[in-house]
Amino acid sequence: MTFKTDIQIAREANKKPIQEIGEKLGIPTDHLLPFGHDKAKVSADFIKGLKGKTDGKLILVTAINPTPAGEGKTTTTVGLGDGLNRIGKKAAICIREASLGPCFGMKGGAAGGGYAQVIPMEDMNLHFTGDFHAITSAHNLLAAMIDNHIYWGNELEIDERRVVWRRVLDMNDRALRDTVTSLGGIANGFPRQTGFDITVASEVMAILCLATDLKDLEKRLGDIIVAYRRDRTPVYARDLKADGAMTVLLQQAMQPNIVQTLENNPAFVHGGPFANIAHGCNSVIATTTALKLADYVVTEAGFGADLGAEKFMNIKCRKAGIAPDCVVLVATVRAMKMNGGVAKGDLGAENVEAVQHGCANLGRHIGNMKSFGVPVVVAINHFTSDTDAEIQAVKHYVASQGSEAILCKHWEKGSAGITELATRVAEIADAGISQFAPLYPDDLPLFEKIERIAKSIYRADEVLADKKIRDQLRTWEDAGFGHLPICMAKTQYSFSTDPDLRGAPVGHSVPVREVRLAAGAGFIVAICGEIMTMPGLPRVPSAETIKLNPQGEIEGLF
Amino acid sequence: MTFKTDIQIAREANKKPIQEIGEKLGIPTDHLLPFGHDKAKVSADFIKGLKGKTDGKLILVTAINPTPAGEGKTTTTVGLGDGLNRIGKKAAICIREASLGPCFGMKGGAAGGGYAQVIPMEDMNLHFTGDFHAITSAHNLLAAMIDNHIYWGNELEIDERRVVWRRVLDMNDRALRDTVTSLGGIANGFPRQTGFDITVASEVMAILCLATDLKDLEKRLGDIIVAYRRDRTPVYARDLKADGAMTVLLQQAMQPNIVQTLENNPAFVHGGPFANIAHGCNSVIATTTALKLADYVVTEAGFGADLGAEKFMNIKCRKAGIAPDCVVLVATVRAMKMNGGVAKGDLGAENVEAVQHGCANLGRHIGNMKSFGVPVVVAINHFTSDTDAEIQAVKHYVASQGSEAILCKHWEKGSAGITELATRVAEIADAGISQFAPLYPDDLPLFEKIERIAKSIYRADEVLADKKIRDQLRTWEDAGFGHLPICMAKTQYSFSTDPDLRGAPVGHSVPVREVRLAAGAGFIVAICGEIMTMPGLPRVPSAETIKLNPQGEIEGLF
Repeated sequence: MTFKTDIQIAREANKKPIQEIGEKLGIPTDHLLPFGHDKAKVSADFIKGLKGKTDGKLILVTAINPTPAGEGKTTTTVGLGDGLNRIGKKAAICIREASLGPCFGMKGGAAGGGYAQVIPMEDMNLHFTGDFHAITSAHNLLAAMIDNHIYWGNELEIDERRVVWRRVLDMNDRALRDTVTSLGGIANGFPRQTGFDITVASEVMAILCLATDLKDLEKRLGDIIVAYRRDRTPVYARDLKADGAMTVLLQQAMQPNIVQTLENNPAFVHGGPFANIAHGCNSVIATTTALKLADYVVTEAGFGADLGAEKFMNIKCRKAGIAPDCVVLVATVRAMKMNGGVAKGDLGAENVEAVQHGCANLGRHIGNMKSFGVPVVVAINHFTSDTDAEIQAVKHYVASQGSEAILCKHWEKGSAGITELATRVAEIADAGISQFAPLYPDDLPLFEKIERIAKSIYRADEVLADKKIRDQLRTWEDAGFGHLPICMAKTQYSFSTDPDLRGAPVGHSVPVREVRLAAGAGFIVAICGEIMTMPGLPRVPSAETIKLNPQGEIEGLF
Repeated sequence: MTFKTDIQIAREANKKPIQEIGEKLGIPTDHLLPFGHDKAKVSADFIKGLKGKTDGKLILVTAINPTPAGEGKTTTTVGLGDGLNRIGKKAAICIREASLGPCFGMKGGAAGGGYAQVIPMEDMNLHFTGDFHAITSAHNLLAAMIDNHIYWGNELEIDERRVVWRRVLDMNDRALRDTVTSLGGIANGFPRQTGFDITVASEVMAILCLATDLKDLEKRLGDIIVAYRRDRTPVYARDLKADGAMTVLLQQAMQPNIVQTLENNPAFVHGGPFANIAHGCNSVIATTTALKLADYVVTEAGFGADLGAEKFMNIKCRKAGIAPDCVVLVATVRAMKMNGGVAKGDLGAENVEAVQHGCANLGRHIGNMKSFGVPVVVAINHFTSDTDAEIQAVKHYVASQGSEAILCKHWEKGSAGITELATRVAEIADAGISQFAPLYPDDLPLFEKIERIAKSIYRADEVLADKKIRDQLRTWEDAGFGHLPICMAKTQYSFSTDPDLRGAPVGHSVPVREVRLAAGAGFIVAICGEIMTMPGLPRVPSAETIKLNPQGEIEGLF
């Protein structure tokens, strides 16, 4: 049996004009700002007019800890959206935008796979509607204004050694990680050591994704701390009068993008913050807009549920005043096997015991999600190599955890393969049984928030942190930042900070290496382990094989 | 008498859907890729289908040497396009795109002014259709691939000291002019000194503007010299296998953009290379497409005729196989006065003598343009402060040069103010009297090409250049680059290399400080004087006052 590649399937899709997709959600053509014939932005004016409308149901798709076997979280998000539409519901999905830079390193990130994809794939992996470019511009304008301020006399008394605002590019470029700028003499300013991150790591990205409207966006941009003075007092973007111009650069980017699935259902694709040093969800404005327009909104969060869903709940939902009506936890038999100790090369052989063993990882995620007061369904994303016995093992285990697992074949069959899950999810969401509450209150001390996450979600015994870090947290509490939620930055591969520790580890410690204040985004980042904010290219970057074929189609991107 | 500001006029415009504008040129809606409701790209497929169609007439708008008084070259280009349409001709204009970065330094560059403008102004000064962002990405991908190649073993034996490919950002940021990259240890590569230019200075920009189609684009990108080996042999972008991926990043940007004038006539706005180290014209693909679709195409070249028109003729026309049917030389009474020695503060008072004196600058440009074998008309761009006697003085002078000057009031009255010029230009173009020939043949030695330009156009006595520079030119001739045209980089304010030397200087010398080979773009840059390729922000950048007003309109950008 041979399968078509994702890109083959995507190119054979019967794409509809984006106006028809918008119509499904009641968006008038005038308020759909087209980018080509298959992408559009929903106008800010139209969104303003939605105030007061009842929200649809919100469904969060999350997953077990990722393994090299693949889980298919986005594929399931897309499939579930199509499945809900298939059973007659008015549903939309909300996912993140892809970053251009990494596509030229390893293979590009398709949006979903098989018969559960969002299109147009090529555009989504390249410039799309220019949002990331706008974020790059806004971020770097602020950077230029900092150095320019220092150059012209430094009235704000910025300590040049304490400029914390770096620059960004949407490119994998290790040479830019650590640089010295302003060399070359008096006309070029004061030399100092700084560097570049990739655009998705920009605080501007996180801000765009958490802002509720343009006014809130401008306020948050003004709140960005760009540097400190010798006396350690912060200098804000507002002090440099950069917030207005940055907002202008982001005005268009703030409008959510709409595209379509292979089955011509609406998909919001907007924003893409890092899932480690940021919260890893699509934009609040896309999600809240979708909730006004659709009866069911399926969205996803980055990485596994310990990182992505935790941040979705504790940061995005808390800040946006939204709450999931149902959580779908994606698992695969193959990933269960890997969590159960099977090597990637041995995944082909049936191994029910390993599946059972690996289910511990799944079980802990189920419990964690329930601890937020939300109902959980497990979606088994079917691989053709899965055996019945293995699938039954997962189902049996999930049932033993008081939940249910449903086999989904959307990758192979599109919406027809996922109607059972769609039906069940709609029932659960409609039942209104979710009693969502975040894990910790706003007024818990910052360090205790970190401990709460580490102990409740990761099941660690303790959080380790230098006195310096604890002092830093207390300083921020004194400065009025104590109410902020925590954004954990740790490995996605394990509940612990050791990426090789699969399954459901206990008794581990969570060392906090560094804490960062993202005053504009509105969270405090706790960094546990090495976090790379500017990737490099591999020995043979995929850029070497990406090209246009004689038909003008893009080759090598996928 | 009070006048509305440009932005007031632009906002009051009765904009038509871009599809209606495309229709005027016979572009089917399917082949117009919209960006919002008022911008679109013309599809590559549609352009391919135009081969074999007869070309319309090409009219080049150029100007005297710029003075602080302003000339209104773009305003006249727009006005003439509207004027031609008003007298019943099917006309389109072709101008350059604006660079985003400088808008946050000084005030943004509007496209035209008064009642001769291209809209939407805001978009054109910000992200527009993302072309410059795509160029930034393609340029920086190549930069990342160079350092990545060195990092992984440097199989091509690139001499790290001789990497000539810098990075670019569309931002005024002096701190990036001169940097050291790859600091921070082994994982970040080999530290080396490099820097950033502004995106419009990228060779990729020049390439995009000279490429005839995607295939030619890819070929030229491959031809870029990125570095040299210890033995001085060049390393090409093709050697790094970067050309395919760069082409993919530029595929969409290669499609020309279409917008509209205030009078709803079609305007191609595409590409924007520097007018000093590059050739300073809009893209070849936009111009050649417009020529297939309109009976008259009005375009412009950067700076004064000594730089912009010279490069238009010797680089763009030569390479694209096009030729102007008529040249319109824009002059103002005010600029004549300044060329005649009047200070900016004294421009208000009538001064016929100064006008007469300053006409020498105009006269030399007329002669220069005629030397290309093309008929010349002078457009006097009317300012309300001009007196009849001053205007007559210009007309009289121009008549004495065997040409004619026509007073144009398009700034104040739109197309109604420029019908006389439009009628005359159409007559001249229709007469088919142009016998265009470039200034020098391909096979003239490189240094002699520089001399030819300096002596014939600038009326210099001599070109001064070190032996090192002459040797370099000979080396390139030996390497097969001797057939390339010269791209002069000198001050725009004078025929000489001294910006303060107005009028029509003679007896001066042109010192060539440096020569650069742009093997992809296909020209050799001769740098005469200081050329800044990364601007800085002023003490009070306009970014400080740019913001959204409560109505969501952009303030401070214009």
